[in-house]
Amino acid sequence: MTTLPQTNQQFRLAARPVGLPTADNWQLASEPLAPLLEGEVRVQVLYLSLDPAMRGWMNEGKSYIRPVAIGEVMRAGGVGVVVESKSPDFAVGDHVGGAFGVQQFWTGDTKPGQLNKIDPRVASLPAWLNILGMPGMTAYFGLTEIGQPRAGETVVVSAAAGAVGMTVGQVAKQLGCRVVGIAGGPDKCRFVVEELGFDACIDYKEGAIAAGLKQHCPQGVDVYFDNVGGEILDAVLARINLKARIVICGAISQYNNTAPVRGPANYLSLLVNRARMEGMVVFDYADRYPVAVAELSGYLKQGRMKSKEDIVAGLDSFPETLLKLFNGQNFGKLVLQVAQ
Amino acid sequence: MTTLPQTNQQFRLAARPVGLPTADNWQLASEPLAPLLEGEVRVQVLYLSLDPAMRGWMNEGKSYIRPVAIGEVMRAGGVGVVVESKSPDFAVGDHVGGAFGVQQFWTGDTKPGQLNKIDPRVASLPAWLNILGMPGMTAYFGLTEIGQPRAGETVVVSAAAGAVGMTVGQVAKQLGCRVVGIAGGPDKCRFVVEELGFDACIDYKEGAIAAGLKQHCPQGVDVYFDNVGGEILDAVLARINLKARIVICGAISQYNNTAPVRGPANYLSLLVNRARMEGMVVFDYADRYPVAVAELSGYLKQGRMKSKEDIVAGLDSFPETLLKLFNGQNFGKLVLQVAQ
Repeated sequence: MTTLPQTNQQFRLAARPVGLPTADNWQLASEPLAPLLEGEVRVQVLYLSLDPAMRGWMNEGKSYIRPVAIGEVMRAGGVGVVVESKSPDFAVGDHVGGAFGVQQFWTGDTKPGQLNKIDPRVASLPAWLNILGMPGMTAYFGLTEIGQPRAGETVVVSAAAGAVGMTVGQVAKQLGCRVVGIAGGPDKCRFVVEELGFDACIDYKEGAIAAGLKQHCPQGVDVYFDNVGGEILDAVLARINLKARIVICGAISQYNNTAPVRGPANYLSLLVNRARMEGMVVFDYADRYPVAVAELSGYLKQGRMKSKEDIVAGLDSFPETLLKLFNGQNFGKLVLQVAQ
Repeated sequence: MTTLPQTNQQFRLAARPVGLPTADNWQLASEPLAPLLEGEVRVQVLYLSLDPAMRGWMNEGKSYIRPVAIGEVMRAGGVGVVVESKSPDFAVGDHVGGAFGVQQFWTGDTKPGQLNKIDPRVASLPAWLNILGMPGMTAYFGLTEIGQPRAGETVVVSAAAGAVGMTVGQVAKQLGCRVVGIAGGPDKCRFVVEELGFDACIDYKEGAIAAGLKQHCPQGVDVYFDNVGGEILDAVLARINLKARIVICGAISQYNNTAPVRGPANYLSLLVNRARMEGMVVFDYADRYPVAVAELSGYLKQGRMKSKEDIVAGLDSFPETLLKLFNGQNFGKLVLQVAQ
């Protein structure tokens, strides 16, 4: 029998951020690991998903999920391997996904919804946090259920090189749409077009979003999948077609604002165009994740879609790695590697 | 045979307004009336509908309908009586509705969609511009098709004492909803509750919109019918329920802005609540107006709904009467009486 782990390093929320999170918002703790109770398992966390939504969880106030409490381990989804088990349902060596938190080891019972087994033969472990994980589920259900694109329509997606945007665009291509991404910088735009097969990508850092939309969406915009809010949302609103659908998935440009949120000044384009703007939260579709996983893993195996992760090693680097989400540095799904 | 009219007074658009329309935006012309051509009719305009949307028609730029051109007779819907006819379909004495414009006499052919016969025994002529006219159609289809309220839900409507709001609230009551209006001043609020049967009305001139919504919508807001935009839209966004529907029908608070439109800063409430904001334009439902007219006139006859008009006499008064829409003075549907 190998030596069992004795301690568990954890990032706890020390204080609520104002604007961008700083080192002062975190406390790195080291806790002893208690023996397992009957029915519990212990998971060694291998990879953690770092997501824009985490910034929202650090705020107080009513939202779609309760805030992380001060002193609590920061919430994060991850994949890991079972290292101890007193549950009949999980064996040592099983790979599992769950809301493990920013820590080395997760310990808990195995009631439904806590853990899901994942198969590393279907896709790499980081891909289970990306196209087969929350970002992929968000993209799949947000696009198909709220955006409802039809073949031949034009789909625009912002943060196109990010975890959600990447999959939105690739699924839209599978559905026969013209797909235009919006991303920051020539490298991301090249990746989105050349690697992922988008029809075009607009570099918002070059500034001319309106001109880019006019050039690359000559038939207007039927579906806009919005991850960013702010001026990009306004620019797209100015180009939507009759009966367009705007999926409000996030607003990363606004999450760290200390000023009030900037509302979309062009929202009356919804009236003129009889268009719709609708919010979505991925958890609403939890009972149908397996359907989406089956479809998306099929595309992956057939080489019709790609999963790209930006993997940073070391639990210690969590505070600074998280910031990559907000300064536009990450390229593909941001994943923190906690252990080999 | 009575003497036929020889001249026609008309208000033409002289210049596009910046902010509120002023006297300089109008030219009062007097034109000779040419003899009728074969197939034409001449209508004496009796009542004209004055609507917030007219402000939009005075602007240049793409919208759901082409702008009124400089020098053109100002567009307006109205009811009148046929005074001359060279059409087999209309006889002198027939009452008709149509887009007659701000003038004493309308002359034109009778191709489908130009004129619709109206029956003054079903409802008064002004009511044909109100609950049985465009405002009523807007209210009926916006509420039922976009808002989709279910019995027991809470429906909030702004500009509740205005032409559209009045009917929105009364139809929602017929559907078994809790109905809360937002209007300016105690007289309008009293009217909305005591005469129209709304459950409550919030006086936005008293300022405490958020507190009023909290008090009068204890179960939150399921449907919001927005005629005003601005801070009222933001206040309601902060109180919406899961899966709420917001009907964007207008934004009168923003129409005369010389500053940029104020976007709804609380739009991310759509995300948290998986809610929807959707624009509507009444013309899309034109083929179903007769259905709505039949239903609404039935409610009127049964005394289950009321139509209230604010009637101002005199074509000459058009420029100043129009302004009542934007300074909150009108009470019920604003109608200009052009002739007895």
